[in-house]
Amino acid sequence: MRNGIPDTVALDETNGALVIIDQTALPGELKLLSLTTLEEMIDAIKALKVRGAPAIGAAAAIGLYLAVKAAGMDKFADIKAAFAASRPTAVNLFWALGRMERAALENPDGPIEALRLEALAIRDEDIAACRAIGEHGLTLLDGVEGVLTHCNAGRLAAVRYGTALAPVYAGLERGRRFKVYAGETRPLLQGARLTAYELCAAGADVTLICDSMAADVMRRGRVQAVIVGSDRIAANGDVCNKIGTSGLAVLAKHYGVPFYVCAPSSTIDPKAASGADIPIEERDGGEVTDMWYAERMAPPGVKVYNPAFDVTPGGLVSAIVTERGVVRPPYSF
Amino acid sequence: MRNGIPDTVALDETNGALVIIDQTALPGELKLLSLTTLEEMIDAIKALKVRGAPAIGAAAAIGLYLAVKAAGMDKFADIKAAFAASRPTAVNLFWALGRMERAALENPDGPIEALRLEALAIRDEDIAACRAIGEHGLTLLDGVEGVLTHCNAGRLAAVRYGTALAPVYAGLERGRRFKVYAGETRPLLQGARLTAYELCAAGADVTLICDSMAADVMRRGRVQAVIVGSDRIAANGDVCNKIGTSGLAVLAKHYGVPFYVCAPSSTIDPKAASGADIPIEERDGGEVTDMWYAERMAPPGVKVYNPAFDVTPGGLVSAIVTERGVVRPPYSF
Repeated sequence: MRNGIPDTVALDETNGALVIIDQTALPGELKLLSLTTLEEMIDAIKALKVRGAPAIGAAAAIGLYLAVKAAGMDKFADIKAAFAASRPTAVNLFWALGRMERAALENPDGPIEALRLEALAIRDEDIAACRAIGEHGLTLLDGVEGVLTHCNAGRLAAVRYGTALAPVYAGLERGRRFKVYAGETRPLLQGARLTAYELCAAGADVTLICDSMAADVMRRGRVQAVIVGSDRIAANGDVCNKIGTSGLAVLAKHYGVPFYVCAPSSTIDPKAASGADIPIEERDGGEVTDMWYAERMAPPGVKVYNPAFDVTPGGLVSAIVTERGVVRPPYSF
Repeated sequence: MRNGIPDTVALDETNGALVIIDQTALPGELKLLSLTTLEEMIDAIKALKVRGAPAIGAAAAIGLYLAVKAAGMDKFADIKAAFAASRPTAVNLFWALGRMERAALENPDGPIEALRLEALAIRDEDIAACRAIGEHGLTLLDGVEGVLTHCNAGRLAAVRYGTALAPVYAGLERGRRFKVYAGETRPLLQGARLTAYELCAAGADVTLICDSMAADVMRRGRVQAVIVGSDRIAANGDVCNKIGTSGLAVLAKHYGVPFYVCAPSSTIDPKAASGADIPIEERDGGEVTDMWYAERMAPPGVKVYNPAFDVTPGGLVSAIVTERGVVRPPYSF
């Protein structure tokens, strides 16, 4: 527990449960879910009860371990396939599942225990990576007062410290008090519901804006850096992240504001040569027209375009920060 | 009545009422409000029951006439001041009130009748201006298939045809079928509630997006023009319009998409040398955190920045279309 918020993803060995913070219940309620069946775990990922690329990776690793432990190794392929089909864009999911598979294959005499250890390693490495991202990212923020972020790439998107917000937290520990502008991030409002929530809980200075207000905030000189996370980074540095990110990168270039991407190296997908190779999840239009509202907010039958992610060309990214350090363009992973 | 939608603003002489479409009830219900007292009229403007710069101007003119007719000419200054204080940014409001004052002053023998005629003239001129804007604007759209718009600068923002959407309607009458992308326009959702509604009602091809998706739509080449309205245009061509407009202009420049502003000449304020001279209304944070939702969507106590408008530098505006024709930069009004 830090600032009253437990880890986003945890293993409850005693009850054979994947324990997650139900992010669809925030900011109203901090609710922990104990998921014990494969169906519950898959549903939690699909319904974004757990979301954020690093958190999805850790949750899938722990979930895979628990589901295989319960069903037996002969179900491994089916269970892995079920997790792999839960969401398409975040590569950390596939990276974690691949690591789990290798761990089982390399330990034929004790595959279940190997899965357990690998899941815990993925969890622990995520915590350490986010911590390191915070330290490296903070070196970019000398003299910076205002920071703009989008979606939630904070502690709720990883196991513990977060990615884009890790430098903010690292700064807080040293008495730096950034003014963070959080884009609400339509349609799922991860900025309003999650980023604002966790920054308030940590005592940070956070101001909520609508996504369309970012240009105004930059034009007024209120931020000196934009920091976002990523769901997948291509070999050429193209960054896939929450829809709206690429627009912020264009605005940042126009206004001369550095645009930083913070992500663990597990987010880098060398098999994707460019952003064009990254599958973009399109979600139901009801998320735009109906979700959260007391009543529908669009006319019946209107068409909706609802991509969950977009691709920011690497050329617009001032630096990519991983646990290994800070990389500048041109990128080649 | 056109496409089942009556004029946005009308004078009901028999009942001494300003009749408006209640835009806060859309898209759920097409509700007409008959406003007979000054308080009702002022509240309707403040609460955005009637909104859109040209519609506000016409509503204030009709409202001023009715209120002065009921209270007497000695209350003229007070009533005019009440309307002038209702909203700060749209200059059409002040322009209409100024015209009404001159009409009364120039007709000391029959000021009430002069006010009636002037209010009707403002209404009729708005209809004619929007019609002309449609024709001029359409000349810019040769070869254009997809159009992106923001907020609502359609028929619901004027008395009848609208400004930014007037070229779309003029095209529809000639069998052109633009694919219109409508940004939902947080926080008040004028794009989702009003633009999508009126375009659907007119049988146009409209796709709703979140504001943050505009960059993706442009990057994919789905639109060849951005068309917006304006609440006030400065002498140097700086355009004040719904928050989010300036970001679209930056994106349009980056992606090589022409960015057009359509507005009646009453929107031009020669007294504002640049956008810096235009007062920007900041509205309550609850519009971002609570409005429309079944429950609050942000943590308690979070700060909110909620400007209703932003300023797009004239240099980013490819053309300004008024009833007089098409003007290109550099602008000098």
